[in-house]
Amino acid sequence: MPLSIIAGGAGFVGANLIPRLLDEGRYVVIVDNFSRGSADNIRKYLGDDRVTLIQADLSDRGATEGVFARAKVIGAIDEVWHLAANSDIPAGVQDSDVDFKDTFRTTFELLRAMRQFEVGTLHFASSSAVYGDLGDQRLHEFIGPLLPISNYGAMKLASEAQASAAAESFLRRVNLFRFPNVVGVPATHGVILDFVNKLAARPETLDVLGDGTQQKAYLHVSDLVAAMLAVRARRIDGKIEVVNIGPTDVGVTVRWIAEQVVARVRRGATISFGTGNKGWVGDVPKFNYSTDRIQSYGWAPALGSSEAIVRAIDEIARQQGC
Amino acid sequence: MPLSIIAGGAGFVGANLIPRLLDEGRYVVIVDNFSRGSADNIRKYLGDDRVTLIQADLSDRGATEGVFARAKVIGAIDEVWHLAANSDIPAGVQDSDVDFKDTFRTTFELLRAMRQFEVGTLHFASSSAVYGDLGDQRLHEFIGPLLPISNYGAMKLASEAQASAAAESFLRRVNLFRFPNVVGVPATHGVILDFVNKLAARPETLDVLGDGTQQKAYLHVSDLVAAMLAVRARRIDGKIEVVNIGPTDVGVTVRWIAEQVVARVRRGATISFGTGNKGWVGDVPKFNYSTDRIQSYGWAPALGSSEAIVRAIDEIARQQGC
Repeated sequence: MPLSIIAGGAGFVGANLIPRLLDEGRYVVIVDNFSRGSADNIRKYLGDDRVTLIQADLSDRGATEGVFARAKVIGAIDEVWHLAANSDIPAGVQDSDVDFKDTFRTTFELLRAMRQFEVGTLHFASSSAVYGDLGDQRLHEFIGPLLPISNYGAMKLASEAQASAAAESFLRRVNLFRFPNVVGVPATHGVILDFVNKLAARPETLDVLGDGTQQKAYLHVSDLVAAMLAVRARRIDGKIEVVNIGPTDVGVTVRWIAEQVVARVRRGATISFGTGNKGWVGDVPKFNYSTDRIQSYGWAPALGSSEAIVRAIDEIARQQGC
Repeated sequence: MPLSIIAGGAGFVGANLIPRLLDEGRYVVIVDNFSRGSADNIRKYLGDDRVTLIQADLSDRGATEGVFARAKVIGAIDEVWHLAANSDIPAGVQDSDVDFKDTFRTTFELLRAMRQFEVGTLHFASSSAVYGDLGDQRLHEFIGPLLPISNYGAMKLASEAQASAAAESFLRRVNLFRFPNVVGVPATHGVILDFVNKLAARPETLDVLGDGTQQKAYLHVSDLVAAMLAVRARRIDGKIEVVNIGPTDVGVTVRWIAEQVVARVRRGATISFGTGNKGWVGDVPKFNYSTDRIQSYGWAPALGSSEAIVRAIDEIARQQGC
């Protein structure tokens, strides 16, 4: 029986991917170190005989080999979904060890294990952060130079590079998915959860970092998973697919998101803005993300940025008990 | 007095860079683990009071901090030249630990030390290998996606990415020099040294990997160093310069190089070719390398590919005692 290993599978994206893979009749081995992921996120799938959850640190060689050895006994490992990463960008700017260990090193050890255990297909959760700040230029897949402005983006790009070399050497197929800002549940971080939690702690005023003019496009996690599965199903000429995944609109501002959160969670609260349009070091102020390639494959998101945000605010508010 | 740290400074490029930095009146701290570099390469500079040679492994955090601490006592460290890397591409394809440790990890620890010791300028020896195999496309700096086909190229790209994030966070200036194939002395590896050594071992026949049609552009190391110093002297708008360095011609074939080596070293030897136009996994068969950007800065190489090769063959033949 075909088996998928999902690295970082107890996180936000993994929790939404698992049911889709089970629907295909697959075995699933979920690996997580629970630094950000949690068994709670995937509790409802743990009763399924085909699901195995392993707590392991994939930046450790022995632990990673152990995971593959266990998975091999369960089924025929034919693909790895690599979703494990540090997702706290400011933490990674503060200390380069964070993204190194959780993003770069996990890719490195997964690739070594894939070679050793002869697993041919890698799906990697890369990021639009690999583009850095290219000003007003449209960010399509064939633009350069790639100069990320955070260690988060740097280690995502470094992971893409490793996977690319591995494709030349021993893999059969690599999909590099450049994620946009993704929203939905189970939410572990991000602007919506941040706003919801701030309002829960201090209901009168919502303090927003920056002046609120920062505009970004958002995709709902249900559309993200559908996009990845659509790309995975495509035959390609070479071994590597690099593709931006994102909504097809120009996005919404932080101000608009703040207003929607207030409207849903604490109608009447005051919103207080800071100054500047960069929230933190490593945060790209504006963003012109091309999804021409994936659209040319016939994929389109079911929800635009504003619909995705409104739906996610409701989901996250429920998650947080509001 | 200003002081330059040269990581991997006892290698091929370092040996050619050191005298130029001394000419500027600088102190120079050369750091090498002597895995490929050698004190012999830089012997003639070691008598200079301003030159310090330290044997250290820059993939080790403590060792790297120790180097900076020592250098700080000698002079005002204002720049790091990062030339340390694995240069054996096939070895890195065989074992991903090689490029990880010697290329990626050295960049990682150097950047941490630069932050700690407040050193603002990094010059990084990147590589045209970051481009991977983009077919017939012209390889200019603003092309993508960057999909290297060797761990060597992958860890060079990963190092660029790290340096880019560091520029956003704490560096003042980063120059990412994408090296072409560089020839000259002291030669430690490469096609010319390989051919010269093969003819020394077996004078009748020179066995060439591949069919000899593989074409590459070559730069003489004297031109490489001049180019880096020219870019370093330029003021730029942002903090990062990414620039291809290379000759302005389309290069020469392996067959032509083999013929020139035979003509200089062992006239009359037979040349025996293999099949295919890829020498090994990770070797890009054809190459269309744009140097438009650096030419627009007013730089031009003194020697074209064929002149660089002929001069380097003579230099390497002398080095090897032919």
